[in-house]
Amino acid sequence: MELFNYFRSSASFRVRIALALKGLDYDYRSVHLAKNEQFKESYAAVSASRLVPLLRDGEASVTQSMAIIEYLDETHPEPPLLPREALDRAYVRALSQDIACEIHPLNNLRVLRYLTQEMGVSDENKDRWYRHWVETGLEVVERRLVGEERAGAFCFGDTPGMADCLLVPQVFNAQRFHARLDHVPTVMRIHEACMKLDAFAKTQPSACPDAE
Amino acid sequence: MELFNYFRSSASFRVRIALALKGLDYDYRSVHLAKNEQFKESYAAVSASRLVPLLRDGEASVTQSMAIIEYLDETHPEPPLLPREALDRAYVRALSQDIACEIHPLNNLRVLRYLTQEMGVSDENKDRWYRHWVETGLEVVERRLVGEERAGAFCFGDTPGMADCLLVPQVFNAQRFHARLDHVPTVMRIHEACMKLDAFAKTQPSACPDAE
Repeated sequence: MELFNYFRSSASFRVRIALALKGLDYDYRSVHLAKNEQFKESYAAVSASRLVPLLRDGEASVTQSMAIIEYLDETHPEPPLLPREALDRAYVRALSQDIACEIHPLNNLRVLRYLTQEMGVSDENKDRWYRHWVETGLEVVERRLVGEERAGAFCFGDTPGMADCLLVPQVFNAQRFHARLDHVPTVMRIHEACMKLDAFAKTQPSACPDAE
Repeated sequence: MELFNYFRSSASFRVRIALALKGLDYDYRSVHLAKNEQFKESYAAVSASRLVPLLRDGEASVTQSMAIIEYLDETHPEPPLLPREALDRAYVRALSQDIACEIHPLNNLRVLRYLTQEMGVSDENKDRWYRHWVETGLEVVERRLVGEERAGAFCFGDTPGMADCLLVPQVFNAQRFHARLDHVPTVMRIHEACMKLDAFAKTQPSACPDAE
């Protein structure tokens, strides 16, 4: 397998964690977003969206980080990243989507660029925007985890799974933009539990081959 | 089952379509977003995120539209909304996420409110923002559909499924904000095929009990 990705892309980081949790080897292909390499013809030829990550598995391409993680879980079932029961699966997916649909899209590089370059928003306000969505979005994740019997050492029970693959990269982004995190102690407890594991620590942005 | 939702919420519309495709009955519970009913204590008691839709199934609550649709598909398998093969499932999920993660979050009511009320963006620029993400986002969906053997009369083959549940509400939003759609003929062809079916036509915003 080949993973087209970028060290700082949090959607890429999610998939790196999932591949590591599954113990799967892959070739790391760097697509440098800040240098606009995603728009190069060679990448456009394989990616309709010009976004990372993209997983090549033989002749097939899979995009969208959550779709890739579920694909890996279906094709390499052990260890499972989603639970078995429908309601438990729905909880893990919803928690993942609380991050992937409510927080991350607002803080994507292309969105931040559009805010400053097209909407005339100042850098200061752009940073305020970033922190606002991370802080309020993680508050939702915190409320869900606190009210949820299914949460344990990790988002679901005591083994890491799909929701953890999304939570950790989001905390990295929050820290990078100096967002508040003292209001989400459960999020941070789980984040710290994850970071003790190689699957998370060895795939973090600073450990990537294209890290700057 | 009970569906907490709002006629104009496109994430709600996705789930109404899925329930209709499955032929499932439910009680329609209106949460009027424009009147901020999602912040009322009675709703906050069941919803950590204060977002719609939320499906109550007995004592259980499920949130996030894609998680709800997959839950319905797992608990009521016929007719299936996702295909069987892992690569096909990944395609349907990725296409759904191209809408749910890349287009819709940027055009949510709370995001538009934040742009005008907190970022000082004019109404005109807010509308430009809206159209930009819909038009460029649907262009990605179009490119994916055109390059994809799996697409047929609908997003996957010749029966409607999860990706169609996301595509149609997004086109409704685009039309409401007068976005360009002439550059996405395949999207529009599939949209029109869907709208010929009761599951889509009878759950559209104007047909809802809380429609204005």
